[in-house]
Amino acid sequence: MSEKTAVTPESHPAPPAKFSHGVRKGNILQVAGQVGYLPAVAGQPPVTAGPGLREQTLQTLENVRSVLEAGGASWDDAVMIRVYLTDTAHFGEMNEIYNAYFDEQGVKVPAARTTVYVGLPAGLLIEIDALAVLG
Amino acid sequence: MSEKTAVTPESHPAPPAKFSHGVRKGNILQVAGQVGYLPAVAGQPPVTAGPGLREQTLQTLENVRSVLEAGGASWDDAVMIRVYLTDTAHFGEMNEIYNAYFDEQGVKVPAARTTVYVGLPAGLLIEIDALAVLG
Amino acid sequence: MSEKTAVTPESHPAPPAKFSHGVRKGNILQVAGQVGYLPAVAGQPPVTAGPGLREQTLQTLENVRSVLEAGGASWDDAVMIRVYLTDTAHFGEMNEIYNAYFDEQGVKVPAARTTVYVGLPAGLLIEIDALAVLG
Repeated sequence: MSEKTAVTPESHPAPPAKFSHGVRKGNILQVAGQVGYLPAVAGQPPVTAGPGLREQTLQTLENVRSVLEAGGASWDDAVMIRVYLTDTAHFGEMNEIYNAYFDEQGVKVPAARTTVYVGLPAGLLIEIDALAVLG
Repeated sequence: MSEKTAVTPESHPAPPAKFSHGVRKGNILQVAGQVGYLPAVAGQPPVTAGPGLREQTLQTLENVRSVLEAGGASWDDAVMIRVYLTDTAHFGEMNEIYNAYFDEQGVKVPAARTTVYVGLPAGLLIEIDALAVLG
Repeated sequence: MSEKTAVTPESHPAPPAKFSHGVRKGNILQVAGQVGYLPAVAGQPPVTAGPGLREQTLQTLENVRSVLEAGGASWDDAVMIRVYLTDTAHFGEMNEIYNAYFDEQGVKVPAARTTVYVGLPAGLLIEIDALAVLG
């Protein structure tokens, strides 16, 4: 019987509903959709890293990484990264930021990825979730 | 060799294409995208629970639960819930309904979640799928 | 310790960013979002199978299959197929093509599926990714 555990980095604001930022069960770690919120400040509403794609993408990736690490994983365990953008015109810039980030992280085998263009709450340009396999 | 089995609750209308409402292979149970259709009536086309978000959300969650249970799982095994809405203005109300539902279900560790805003067939306001890890 | 390996069919153009067309770790094989690109020609930019939904859907399915097979899997191992369309009016035609394709492939237990309507880069009408469980 594998236990299901919630994964909640200290840096993260409480989710706006009954969901977990990350869940581990067996060898699976699922990271919930992350956005570009800065580390939480107690008693304050979430603040977005910046209005621009660069700041939001980097913060969002860091927020995913925090969940992975709080769950005992790293980017090297991520098998899938889902990127949600709001504008097809952002694809090229997001890729540049994404590539530089993962170069810097020294990830050996990049995760698979799907990028689609959806609606997001006002002010958010990107959302990312990830699936990791541990062990 | 883990067998792949289709999971089909009796309450569910036949899928509109060659896909399964749920599939189990090894310790993984994947629930296909569910919408707010009422339990199937033989020989009748699917009927949506209601025009409103509340009825559709609750029926959709029940439809996901039916697949989980037909596959030998429960909400406690769900690691990821993907919520597709059509309108960012529905986020707050959906969260209220979602929270009350899972309170009532007594789920100990909430699943991770991603919510994005997409197009859905006319009349549908919400679609939900889920990934569960068994055992 | 399960190793993470990238899965790259010879037919596939290099991804436009630091991601893998497929990733296997443990018994999980994740296929990245595939589109209707024809097999890669060295030194040439990707070319889409056709402007129409039929050509793109069939090529996209073949591209997913190539990744599954390069990863030691087949459609019989796929538990989830995510279909991204750009237009709800394409649902019926896509289903016809999808059904005929999987009839021809002789898949015993169809994968679960979620279909949603999103934005995609200009010229692309469909994107598909898949999750497979091996062994």
